[in-house]
Amino acid sequence: MTDLFAGIEAGGTKWVCMIAAHPEDIRASTRFPTTQPEETIGAAIAFIKRQIQPGELKGLGIGSFGPLDLAPESPTYGFLTTTPKPGWANSDLISPFRGAFDLPTGFDTDVNAAALGEARWGAAQGLIDFVYMTIGTGIGGAGMVNGGLIHGLVHSEMGHLHIPHDKERDPFPGVCPYHGDWLEGLATGPAIEARWGKRGENLPPEHPAWQLEAHYLALGIANLIFTLSPQRIILGGGVMEQEQLFPLIRKSVLDILSNYISAKEILENIEQYIVPPGLGSQAGVLGAIALGQRAAERIG
Amino acid sequence: MTDLFAGIEAGGTKWVCMIAAHPEDIRASTRFPTTQPEETIGAAIAFIKRQIQPGELKGLGIGSFGPLDLAPESPTYGFLTTTPKPGWANSDLISPFRGAFDLPTGFDTDVNAAALGEARWGAAQGLIDFVYMTIGTGIGGAGMVNGGLIHGLVHSEMGHLHIPHDKERDPFPGVCPYHGDWLEGLATGPAIEARWGKRGENLPPEHPAWQLEAHYLALGIANLIFTLSPQRIILGGGVMEQEQLFPLIRKSVLDILSNYISAKEILENIEQYIVPPGLGSQAGVLGAIALGQRAAERIG
Repeated sequence: MTDLFAGIEAGGTKWVCMIAAHPEDIRASTRFPTTQPEETIGAAIAFIKRQIQPGELKGLGIGSFGPLDLAPESPTYGFLTTTPKPGWANSDLISPFRGAFDLPTGFDTDVNAAALGEARWGAAQGLIDFVYMTIGTGIGGAGMVNGGLIHGLVHSEMGHLHIPHDKERDPFPGVCPYHGDWLEGLATGPAIEARWGKRGENLPPEHPAWQLEAHYLALGIANLIFTLSPQRIILGGGVMEQEQLFPLIRKSVLDILSNYISAKEILENIEQYIVPPGLGSQAGVLGAIALGQRAAERIG
Repeated sequence: MTDLFAGIEAGGTKWVCMIAAHPEDIRASTRFPTTQPEETIGAAIAFIKRQIQPGELKGLGIGSFGPLDLAPESPTYGFLTTTPKPGWANSDLISPFRGAFDLPTGFDTDVNAAALGEARWGAAQGLIDFVYMTIGTGIGGAGMVNGGLIHGLVHSEMGHLHIPHDKERDPFPGVCPYHGDWLEGLATGPAIEARWGKRGENLPPEHPAWQLEAHYLALGIANLIFTLSPQRIILGGGVMEQEQLFPLIRKSVLDILSNYISAKEILENIEQYIVPPGLGSQAGVLGAIALGQRAAERIG
């Protein structure tokens, strides 16, 4: 019998739930808007129960928006902590699932989940050091180092990277001027819309918006390369569906790095170095499946 | 019999060599200027041979300036690669020692060595996620993640982090204007001297130079926190001998982070979060001893 897992991509706007063995064997999936915790978690539990008989599942994984408490020894392990999203601060994302299903349960940030999915089945197969970033209404990132996901004290917050901002070239102060020159303030979808007065998908591919966007993302990526020296950078999220960004980002990263880093994997093969997710827009929920699978492996 | 190790801190300006079992049992040490590879390496080998009988050493470690080839499967493993230092590009730092001593030999960047030393005997004992930075004539950094040092494709180059540079506050273009707003261009010892016309040790502790220096270092440190979420940050090197920098950096890091990261280990205990090296100015060479010890452990 095929081992099946439940995966939940818990986002601030929507939740995606899936039952699958792996990306080629997806049994069911659904998505619904994020409302209040009890209702949203309840909808996820109800979906899983409708799809599957008790005993068919081997594990469950949750990849969530943050910030999260990921310290297994903490009394609030599995909680959202200080999120500004109304109703969700200090809410327990694990216990309701543990109450409903007696299963090995993996829990991590949405981006760590996606990174694990990419490592198992996507663009990072065989790699032990890589970065996954998502650029959409926010910017998040996950890093794998020596085969293990970065957690540290809390977890990565790569959208908060502070980068140079040439205000003569781009006088836009950022979507949240109070916060200063952080990547998320300058380069998310809402930043593009606020700067140019149009949503990104309504700007033509040759619009200067994309050159500027690529410049900021390249600065953030370069900082990640200087810190982590990854074997590959995977860029997903709604903004990266603008495929014209990839060649612009690659060129801009090379412009920044060529003065410092001589790695033929970057300089000679940038098309294979900065890539879209192998799992496409399903990286997040398939990553949650991977979290459930890993939880089962660790216990089994 | 005590296990003894040889450590070599191979710097671009000077080499430091030591024979020791651990920081409390140092048998001999020496330092000499970096001249040409054959001469400098020869001096290190001669020092070790003078100090010790064959058979007394259990391992040898080399922590070197870079960039280095650290891929064990590479034909040029243990080589300096593209360094601008005359005579040293493409020089083999391991083979001469392997030829002179039949010993387990550890090899890594100078900062990775120092980080390993701090993990074994210094300010990072018991930690599995931390950052070690050195700020002097250059800026380098090393990160440990889940108990292993970051290597990745090449190795970290944390001095190359790109950070915001407010040119109204600080019109100094950086020691190498061509390179743009990178940490090393704005915050090394030579940058301080070029900006203020005096060497750092000749500027009084209340000079505005230190506030600005702390601001730049805090931006780099914040970027490392957003990426790695380390349990501690250790700051060494010549510039950090200006002890007034520590409180200024701590305050500036808090100012940047308090909007984003709520970890009581940082917000409530910053004095224990950003600290000098436990091994002081010997972090580098004792780190090389630690590399030799680890190499022996892995083989033995």
